Amino acid sequence: MIDYKLLLALLAVTEERGFERGAQLLGLSQSAISQRIKLLEARAGGPVLSRSTPPQPTELGRRLLNHAQQVRLLERDLKAQIPGLDEEGLPERLRIALNADSLATWWGAVVGEFCVQRGLLLDLQVEDQDIGVRRMREGDVAACLCSAERPLAGARSLYLGNMRYLAVASPQFLQRHFAAGLEPSRLAQVPAVVFGRDDRLQHRYLAALGVEGRFLHHLCPSSEGFVQLLLAGMGWGMVPAPQVEAALASGRLQVLPGGEVLDVPLYWHHWRNGGELLAQLTSHLAREAPRHLQA
Amino acid sequence: MIDYKLLLALLAVTEERGFERGAQLLGLSQSAISQRIKLLEARAGGPVLSRSTPPQPTELGRRLLNHAQQVRLLERDLKAQIPGLDEEGLPERLRIALNADSLATWWGAVVGEFCVQRGLLLDLQVEDQDIGVRRMREGDVAACLCSAERPLAGARSLYLGNMRYLAVASPQFLQRHFAAGLEPSRLAQVPAVVFGRDDRLQHRYLAALGVEGRFLHHLCPSSEGFVQLLLAGMGWGMVPAPQVEAALASGRLQVLPGGEVLDVPLYWHHWRNGGELLAQLTSHLAREAPRHLQA
Repeated sequence: MIDYKLLLALLAVTEERGFERGAQLLGLSQSAISQRIKLLEARAGGPVLSRSTPPQPTELGRRLLNHAQQVRLLERDLKAQIPGLDEEGLPERLRIALNADSLATWWGAVVGEFCVQRGLLLDLQVEDQDIGVRRMREGDVAACLCSAERPLAGARSLYLGNMRYLAVASPQFLQRHFAAGLEPSRLAQVPAVVFGRDDRLQHRYLAALGVEGRFLHHLCPSSEGFVQLLLAGMGWGMVPAPQVEAALASGRLQVLPGGEVLDVPLYWHHWRNGGELLAQLTSHLAREAPRHLQA
Repeated sequence: MIDYKLLLALLAVTEERGFERGAQLLGLSQSAISQRIKLLEARAGGPVLSRSTPPQPTELGRRLLNHAQQVRLLERDLKAQIPGLDEEGLPERLRIALNADSLATWWGAVVGEFCVQRGLLLDLQVEDQDIGVRRMREGDVAACLCSAERPLAGARSLYLGNMRYLAVASPQFLQRHFAAGLEPSRLAQVPAVVFGRDDRLQHRYLAALGVEGRFLHHLCPSSEGFVQLLLAGMGWGMVPAPQVEAALASGRLQVLPGGEVLDVPLYWHHWRNGGELLAQLTSHLAREAPRHLQA
């Protein structure tokens, strides 16, 4: 069998983002953890970590991490039956990639009670809904929320519902640029707010209005910051309906004339052999998440 | 002089996170942009980009990008006086690293009007307050908000004020674990929420109560998601006072007994030769930001 002490060293250095903190976590000296990484590299036949700050796993390292994480998920089931098996105390967290907008809206309400009852700790990774699956393939996360349906080999995907996006801006912004009504071609010439380079929602909204090509935009990779920039009148943007309910009701934000919405499907991707806990979380999400999403 | 067409190719591939989109942005074919990158590498004497997805600048590439970005800031001033100088239309955005909590609270309100009046677009990068300066040194951003005072060589830092953090949790969480009052030693045994591996606020709060070492925690790298997990009763955590004003007033969150606060200083770091616009933004922040922060 593989020497898991070596894999654990790789996990610790990656999760703690450094040799020093990784060593601390395992109660080892820094030279001891470096030795383990070197031995792992000798056996694996190549470097598993770039020696950058923080160290990044190589492709080979990622494959090993993926395996180690799946083993830890399986171990969790076993330890529920046979406590006291654990030798070295890496904190157990279920690592999940999800889009910032789900995290900013329904995620906590849906998983809160589940985590409390099972003493489950989460390690949440924010990724755009289009690329969460990539993190899963890279072995970085045990499950992800993603807008792509197609599961990875060895994994399943489950449709949870649609996240509804509205195009909104502040009354001042609309008054300044569209006092005479929304002219789609002008929308590309006034600033939008875009979450990041992988966020195509504003592009899709413009395309639906017949506007193609480049448009002015700020980049703001924070759900809450995104809404704050809209409130400050800096641009228009697509936001999840539940996140701006209060601001729409109080008139601090308004829906753009026309009122077209975009629905983005959310799929829960999880490894098929991810263990009992992941299976329970999956059933829980299948039951509870649709209440917070559009069908 | 340097051939800026080559640097522009590097900027485009990095900013658009790919050769194809970078080429699109500049209206070039993919082979033309690859040629430029190769020529740049021949002249610079080494690789400037890793050929990963997305391509990452190497250390050498970062130094070139840093230079290109400073030149663009200076060009902006010149173009305000001599319009029509610009040959190739890379959208101009001021790239700034800031902590998620500033972005989720006061940032938009302070810079909104400034950006609207000057037609300034922002490219915001979320970084923990302790490591924004690192991004600036790497040449990735023109300025940053950071809790470290010490400026980089060639840069200045300006104290804006303190961000006040409160330790809060839901009434259900407090009732469940601390019905008989807060016992500091037990606080490490019930889940906290931590923003990410660079967030030491919860560690500092525990240390101030005399609790050292490891503690149970979720990881949640989203300001809004962080508050949502607290509202769902999943843990306790340190949040900026303005962000939870409403939740505290309505009783959905409560301050932990004792009520100790943590004040985190915020410094604005900017290149000394960053051009007129950056200087104006700096004066604006010096004037407006302190109103939203503790002295």
